Amino acid sequence: MKAVCFGEIMMRLNPVGYRRFRQAEEFQASYAGGEANVAVSLVNYGIETAYVTKVPAHEIGSCVIDTLRKFGVDTKWVLRGGPRLGIYFVEKGASQRPSKVIYDRAGSSIALAEPSEFDWENIFKGSDWFHFTGITPALSENMAAACMDAVKEAKRQGLTVSCDLNYRNKLWSKERAGEVMSSLMPYVDVCIANEEDAADVFGIRAENTDVNSGKLDKEGYVSVAKQLVDRFSFKKVAITLRTSISASVNNWAGMLYDGEPHFSKEYQIQIVDRVGGGDSFGGGLIYSLMNGADADEAIEFAVAASCLKHTIEFDFNLVTADEVKSLALGNASGRVQR
Amino acid sequence: MKAVCFGEIMMRLNPVGYRRFRQAEEFQASYAGGEANVAVSLVNYGIETAYVTKVPAHEIGSCVIDTLRKFGVDTKWVLRGGPRLGIYFVEKGASQRPSKVIYDRAGSSIALAEPSEFDWENIFKGSDWFHFTGITPALSENMAAACMDAVKEAKRQGLTVSCDLNYRNKLWSKERAGEVMSSLMPYVDVCIANEEDAADVFGIRAENTDVNSGKLDKEGYVSVAKQLVDRFSFKKVAITLRTSISASVNNWAGMLYDGEPHFSKEYQIQIVDRVGGGDSFGGGLIYSLMNGADADEAIEFAVAASCLKHTIEFDFNLVTADEVKSLALGNASGRVQR
Amino acid sequence: MKAVCFGEIMMRLNPVGYRRFRQAEEFQASYAGGEANVAVSLVNYGIETAYVTKVPAHEIGSCVIDTLRKFGVDTKWVLRGGPRLGIYFVEKGASQRPSKVIYDRAGSSIALAEPSEFDWENIFKGSDWFHFTGITPALSENMAAACMDAVKEAKRQGLTVSCDLNYRNKLWSKERAGEVMSSLMPYVDVCIANEEDAADVFGIRAENTDVNSGKLDKEGYVSVAKQLVDRFSFKKVAITLRTSISASVNNWAGMLYDGEPHFSKEYQIQIVDRVGGGDSFGGGLIYSLMNGADADEAIEFAVAASCLKHTIEFDFNLVTADEVKSLALGNASGRVQR
Amino acid sequence: MKAVCFGEIMMRLNPVGYRRFRQAEEFQASYAGGEANVAVSLVNYGIETAYVTKVPAHEIGSCVIDTLRKFGVDTKWVLRGGPRLGIYFVEKGASQRPSKVIYDRAGSSIALAEPSEFDWENIFKGSDWFHFTGITPALSENMAAACMDAVKEAKRQGLTVSCDLNYRNKLWSKERAGEVMSSLMPYVDVCIANEEDAADVFGIRAENTDVNSGKLDKEGYVSVAKQLVDRFSFKKVAITLRTSISASVNNWAGMLYDGEPHFSKEYQIQIVDRVGGGDSFGGGLIYSLMNGADADEAIEFAVAASCLKHTIEFDFNLVTADEVKSLALGNASGRVQR
Amino acid sequence: MKAVCFGEIMMRLNPVGYRRFRQAEEFQASYAGGEANVAVSLVNYGIETAYVTKVPAHEIGSCVIDTLRKFGVDTKWVLRGGPRLGIYFVEKGASQRPSKVIYDRAGSSIALAEPSEFDWENIFKGSDWFHFTGITPALSENMAAACMDAVKEAKRQGLTVSCDLNYRNKLWSKERAGEVMSSLMPYVDVCIANEEDAADVFGIRAENTDVNSGKLDKEGYVSVAKQLVDRFSFKKVAITLRTSISASVNNWAGMLYDGEPHFSKEYQIQIVDRVGGGDSFGGGLIYSLMNGADADEAIEFAVAASCLKHTIEFDFNLVTADEVKSLALGNASGRVQR
Amino acid sequence: MKAVCFGEIMMRLNPVGYRRFRQAEEFQASYAGGEANVAVSLVNYGIETAYVTKVPAHEIGSCVIDTLRKFGVDTKWVLRGGPRLGIYFVEKGASQRPSKVIYDRAGSSIALAEPSEFDWENIFKGSDWFHFTGITPALSENMAAACMDAVKEAKRQGLTVSCDLNYRNKLWSKERAGEVMSSLMPYVDVCIANEEDAADVFGIRAENTDVNSGKLDKEGYVSVAKQLVDRFSFKKVAITLRTSISASVNNWAGMLYDGEPHFSKEYQIQIVDRVGGGDSFGGGLIYSLMNGADADEAIEFAVAASCLKHTIEFDFNLVTADEVKSLALGNASGRVQR
Repeated sequence: MKAVCFGEIMMRLNPVGYRRFRQAEEFQASYAGGEANVAVSLVNYGIETAYVTKVPAHEIGSCVIDTLRKFGVDTKWVLRGGPRLGIYFVEKGASQRPSKVIYDRAGSSIALAEPSEFDWENIFKGSDWFHFTGITPALSENMAAACMDAVKEAKRQGLTVSCDLNYRNKLWSKERAGEVMSSLMPYVDVCIANEEDAADVFGIRAENTDVNSGKLDKEGYVSVAKQLVDRFSFKKVAITLRTSISASVNNWAGMLYDGEPHFSKEYQIQIVDRVGGGDSFGGGLIYSLMNGADADEAIEFAVAASCLKHTIEFDFNLVTADEVKSLALGNASGRVQR
Repeated sequence: MKAVCFGEIMMRLNPVGYRRFRQAEEFQASYAGGEANVAVSLVNYGIETAYVTKVPAHEIGSCVIDTLRKFGVDTKWVLRGGPRLGIYFVEKGASQRPSKVIYDRAGSSIALAEPSEFDWENIFKGSDWFHFTGITPALSENMAAACMDAVKEAKRQGLTVSCDLNYRNKLWSKERAGEVMSSLMPYVDVCIANEEDAADVFGIRAENTDVNSGKLDKEGYVSVAKQLVDRFSFKKVAITLRTSISASVNNWAGMLYDGEPHFSKEYQIQIVDRVGGGDSFGGGLIYSLMNGADADEAIEFAVAASCLKHTIEFDFNLVTADEVKSLALGNASGRVQR
Repeated sequence: MKAVCFGEIMMRLNPVGYRRFRQAEEFQASYAGGEANVAVSLVNYGIETAYVTKVPAHEIGSCVIDTLRKFGVDTKWVLRGGPRLGIYFVEKGASQRPSKVIYDRAGSSIALAEPSEFDWENIFKGSDWFHFTGITPALSENMAAACMDAVKEAKRQGLTVSCDLNYRNKLWSKERAGEVMSSLMPYVDVCIANEEDAADVFGIRAENTDVNSGKLDKEGYVSVAKQLVDRFSFKKVAITLRTSISASVNNWAGMLYDGEPHFSKEYQIQIVDRVGGGDSFGGGLIYSLMNGADADEAIEFAVAASCLKHTIEFDFNLVTADEVKSLALGNASGRVQR
Repeated sequence: MKAVCFGEIMMRLNPVGYRRFRQAEEFQASYAGGEANVAVSLVNYGIETAYVTKVPAHEIGSCVIDTLRKFGVDTKWVLRGGPRLGIYFVEKGASQRPSKVIYDRAGSSIALAEPSEFDWENIFKGSDWFHFTGITPALSENMAAACMDAVKEAKRQGLTVSCDLNYRNKLWSKERAGEVMSSLMPYVDVCIANEEDAADVFGIRAENTDVNSGKLDKEGYVSVAKQLVDRFSFKKVAITLRTSISASVNNWAGMLYDGEPHFSKEYQIQIVDRVGGGDSFGGGLIYSLMNGADADEAIEFAVAASCLKHTIEFDFNLVTADEVKSLALGNASGRVQR
Repeated sequence: MKAVCFGEIMMRLNPVGYRRFRQAEEFQASYAGGEANVAVSLVNYGIETAYVTKVPAHEIGSCVIDTLRKFGVDTKWVLRGGPRLGIYFVEKGASQRPSKVIYDRAGSSIALAEPSEFDWENIFKGSDWFHFTGITPALSENMAAACMDAVKEAKRQGLTVSCDLNYRNKLWSKERAGEVMSSLMPYVDVCIANEEDAADVFGIRAENTDVNSGKLDKEGYVSVAKQLVDRFSFKKVAITLRTSISASVNNWAGMLYDGEPHFSKEYQIQIVDRVGGGDSFGGGLIYSLMNGADADEAIEFAVAASCLKHTIEFDFNLVTADEVKSLALGNASGRVQR
Repeated sequence: MKAVCFGEIMMRLNPVGYRRFRQAEEFQASYAGGEANVAVSLVNYGIETAYVTKVPAHEIGSCVIDTLRKFGVDTKWVLRGGPRLGIYFVEKGASQRPSKVIYDRAGSSIALAEPSEFDWENIFKGSDWFHFTGITPALSENMAAACMDAVKEAKRQGLTVSCDLNYRNKLWSKERAGEVMSSLMPYVDVCIANEEDAADVFGIRAENTDVNSGKLDKEGYVSVAKQLVDRFSFKKVAITLRTSISASVNNWAGMLYDGEPHFSKEYQIQIVDRVGGGDSFGGGLIYSLMNGADADEAIEFAVAASCLKHTIEFDFNLVTADEVKSLALGNASGRVQR
């Protein structure tokens, strides 16, 4: 089994601990991004995965290569060149103080890359799954075109295609997102979304849900998933269900809809690092589906995986499939393993 | 609008994270103090604020100047000279283990300063508000006299005067505190106190309240505030209502009394750093009152501001007015802001 | 009053904060072990305590000596020589992610030491209490023999002997453990165990208890203690009662059985570092018993002591007897001590 | 005496110690730039100095304000807005391994600012000196125009104007630099350059000098200075004389030409941080000239100041005028000052 | 071009900066070893390289895999299993205080591996060069046998074989080393040694050389090389020439003998980290020879490469071939590269 | 052999690396002082040593006890109580930038202690050597009296008494120093001084010596030693000979005068931490003399010991006697010890 992920990868800079930006004299540097986070999840679970992106030819670009290689991602298709690597600054929140993310990603090597630089025919050769998110086509018109090239070739070669809607209002308007994403969705088999994406991108709303209220309405999610399937003929729709009690404590669950809704159990999480939580859900889901898990297993694995991600520093979900399965099977007591 | 704060500023030394003093091989150094913390709150909210103190002429004294300037406090009236900067050591508690503060502040430059060194007439020129706390007159007889000079001149020039009672039993006896503070209070318009100060300094007690029990009696607070107003003709009395569930979790609320009691909503806080929490309440309150907020708005702003302070490392409350307002208006879910 | 503890002491290496092993570029190094942790507890409470072990003659071995001396443990009986110091790697868990411990202790100087290297007659001279745990005889046949030598000499000189069962399945089988420990128990006065040890070592089970379920059955513990007393004629059996809600939050209590069960109050703990929690219970218990506390006082002190340990980084329980007593007497609010 | 500096200020990110970029898991963050470094030097010597630039309205932009304020720079004329703050990455070299700087400054708020945003008439009111470098006009056509506006207004108001040529080949070609700088130079009184700038920008060469050979020819420098004065009628030309023995050891001297050459003594420096060394020379020179020092005093102060800079981490030259004078007067033994 | 390296890889633990072991509260962790260091050098220069070793199946073993992958080493042939990873502790010296290394490598997974676990036939398929050092056969009899299997198969498949003598007196006696190494040398084409190895292992001495005197005699090295070639028919012998002026400053050169001696230029190095210096010489040499460099080019590249290594923290020589060539061509001034 | 040292011990706070005070956000904390540094040297060489001082009863005071115990110093005679622990801030210099020390030691527990608190009769029982420095009597009149009590009792019990003149102009005037020290010297056997102390305290000058010039005149030192012996009948006078080339490089030697001058060899040192250098000379000298070394051996040991101290962070000279001897015997090449 082999997978391909496509998207940006950025330098993440965050102050140490709970320091605010204005208190930071040093930043921890890591390299991550929505699709790269999924790629790392997949290799951690044992799936050979290639990442497709473009980073500068200088040493900071080399750090991206080192990072992907470190965790076992195939970097053969990472292009080198262009002006810069995107950066995002993360300030960790606590209790009533929310986390903050400042993006400095404009003009990155990947955003400026030409669609023709990506040799999708060879990239996909021998692969089974292609994953991208709504961030990639939002980066630039070039990247929107590159996504279209990719999904067409992926379908031509028979890969399963998954897409996490991941709407970013700093990158494009809802109108433009709706237009571009609507053109890509017909090639997508598995659609992943959080509670707001479907509304932001496609105007599809979960009724009776207020993301700030802490109350989530299961029926609303089913209705959203059903509408998505109706409009785009997805084989599956997966939705994350986050209840933000505070910046330190979240409830977390998920639903996989394949005609029928499959709800996971819900976890209450004391958060270590919340960034990358959604991506780890996608990673867990894709792994499960690639391994032939049924819908209930798949959603439980995806939610347990992303539950664990919230306890791990930085974006990558550095867990093994065994660790996820142990939690999914109910071992949530956190007892010391000697 | 312009404010003046007067008091000591010390070097704060705390071990990293939850290390106990005996485990500390390094200390994080910051510079803070009850009145300086208020000054930084005010400039963060956009109010021009001068700090009046005295620090040694050597480089450690210069660090104080740098720190105040960094956050925008006017340091024109900071005197240089004298023997030393006071120091306090802070050990962060967790769960059932309380935080500890060790003071090493005797013989500081400010404690030994002469009242005549402070040119109150010029200091207050063009200012609207003067704030000090019960710590300043407790430092030395000289400082008690300096406070008297200050409040008299402040009233002469028509400034509003606020005082946080802030009783420190390591600095003076209850008797001496009662005597000195009673002589200063007639010049004070807004009195700020926590649940114990009124009893310690003036013998005024909140009935039916046990600070260790976790139960707070609203009626008791109103009774204390009323007695304070009756005795000293304060225009307003503000009281913080802390319920210490553990060193890691506190409930936090406040009450502003202006003839009528105005209680804020209550927050349950997962604590990052509790030191400076009371000062951030004062800072929020003064800002609100200077901006003409009504009593309900003012107490909600003050409590939301100090709620956020508990999530921030070190004494200073590095938040903007917009961040406080967002929380005061009910957005406490801590969702990531991108 | 003087105590002697006997066992291994290892280098503990843990990543900073909540980092996983695979994220660690640096490790915090400390030196600890089940019996050494007890020794440090005892000296912290004011009891003169010697530690008996063997560490290499090189500088890393000297770090062990430095560490024990730092906290006041008598190192006169620490042998120098042999090939290496055992190491254990600790990864701190959070929320649903459990802590992990990887041991690298085979072939250590203490495991390879000869029983004859320990001059028990002189070691015990003037001492009142001898403590070891089930880890020491598990290290090697030599150490099993050394334990037998020790307990016999201890009884000959009239010391009270305590043993924490501390079963480690990486070190020996349940069968071998049962055999060796059964031969040592007749010399033991005070037996300390957690909820699983009695079953693992002696096949004695607490009925109706599932350690992963979060439910503990008081009756079961009494039944286990009673069986232990019946089989080995212990004067006292102390059992820790941990309910692992998550890796971040545990409930914690204890029971001392001396014919009658004495249950402590239960604490809910927000965990800073859980390793050494059981040892700090033993340290608190031994101190109390050496000081003539009655059973209720002793179990309350032991549990309060170990509650505090969970809030302290690394294995050692760096608290004073006054701090423990304050908590045991009900001051659990964690209010700042100035 | 009052000065104004104009230019970019960036976030500087450098790995800790001698780590290479590929080894960096964290970066130390500071905020600096050629002209800002001069501004900080000036305030350290007691000269009131305003910095003119533009930084984003977000928190990272606020960090720039905090940094400038911390050291006492007047930030009244710092504009807020625009897309991003420029970044440069610094890798510290050692011995035969050179330091490396990677710039990521394209598209910054200052580069995209409009010339009309800068109110030079009010900015210069009451000031005596205006300083900029060749980096500022290189940022964009807008900034070249802003520089022209600035120097014209500065001359109109009678300020002395200094410019450090500071050629950056990543920002513009030699041709474009020569063209723009030639149009600005007629307004400049004091020209500062290193051994290569005059050749790169104006094609004026120091004969018989090879910057890699470690041999510097005094006559060549005089010839360059003379040619600069002849072409642009500068009142003074100052040139730094660096002999790079290795990345760890440099020789350092300077020459001030005012019709006659004035050479400073030469220092052999064990380097702590070399970045900002040239700027600290400019800062020392401007201070001296503003204070009426004669040419020999001025060049000795400038060189001693920049010698000290090489011993200080990060770009800013955090020394007092007294410290510089002590070194300039010959106290170079580095004996402990108690 | 493809290379294979075979040997141990250990966890390296060193205190931060110049701290002594007894001052270390934390250790920086990296993973390295004589042959792994060569492997990383080779991939840095662009040569596909596989590393053959065995590490435990637990997470600390996974850190080895991560590290090798990060820098691009092929880990397909890294076996998982066995009891432990070897460890070495490094204390960095300064001035007259020497660096110290404490090894804790006994009983490692690689030392206990069976020769039959290594599938040399497949490992070498398609490769051109095989490198090992005298440390590998010293680990255990099994590893000595594995080395013999490896060199025989390597020669059978026509690979060039290089061996760095690397005598370690903590691992085996001179007698045993001489015996085993003598049996392996007939299969070796390129022999690498420092000034003491030939004497320690084969009793071949460089006359007139005293490694502590700081004086090195070129003739002596030629004589040693000639004797080595005479005895074992090596095609080439490379010797490093270190003059240890102090722990902070070393002179460094090398000689390649291929019938004729080829001496490199000599560098005086201000040392950042000396460990791995010899391995980086080997890495540079092998790369040059694989690329068809002539003897003079090869020795200059090897020495320049290892000169740079001394300026880089930890064992790995993280430089590019371009950086090495720049230094080898004479650019040693360490000027900043922007 | 047993020794006693008497004096203050302070908290030392220094910024990390070469940061200036104004750049420090954290300080490394250690506990040291002139006489405590000697005590630690002595125990490192194997001499049982007690330290006599007074520190506060709070946790920061306990850190002093922990530190002394850690390195094996007997703390039985350390008094607890009084208001505060003295503090000194150390900023490390580099190249032409000198190190700076800021003292904040007034009002310390030891300075305020009563002479009668020290039970010299019991303290000295069984001891052979008593060491103090000129700092102790400078702390307060009480401490001057305590020193007099101590030296009288030491002589009564037959101990050898050594004193390092250690003049501190921040603590007392030259006049007062001369007066008090002159009264104590008759009880002193071994006098230790640096190149300035004899002049500052007793007006005895080394002719033809300029401490800033880098030139030291051997004859001058002999003349000073001779005058000291003539005036106070010292058995031995030891003088350190420091040539400060820069803050990074010092030459270092010593002379022991016992009627005849004995000069050591001279070392050129690349400095890691210079503070405590003089104390380590005293420690090495006392150890040698206690062990019956002849004058040449003693001065070589003392100088080699203090040479090594300059390569070690913080005040304490953490070396073994074997390490010192190895250097004294000429092994200064700093080659790695494996």
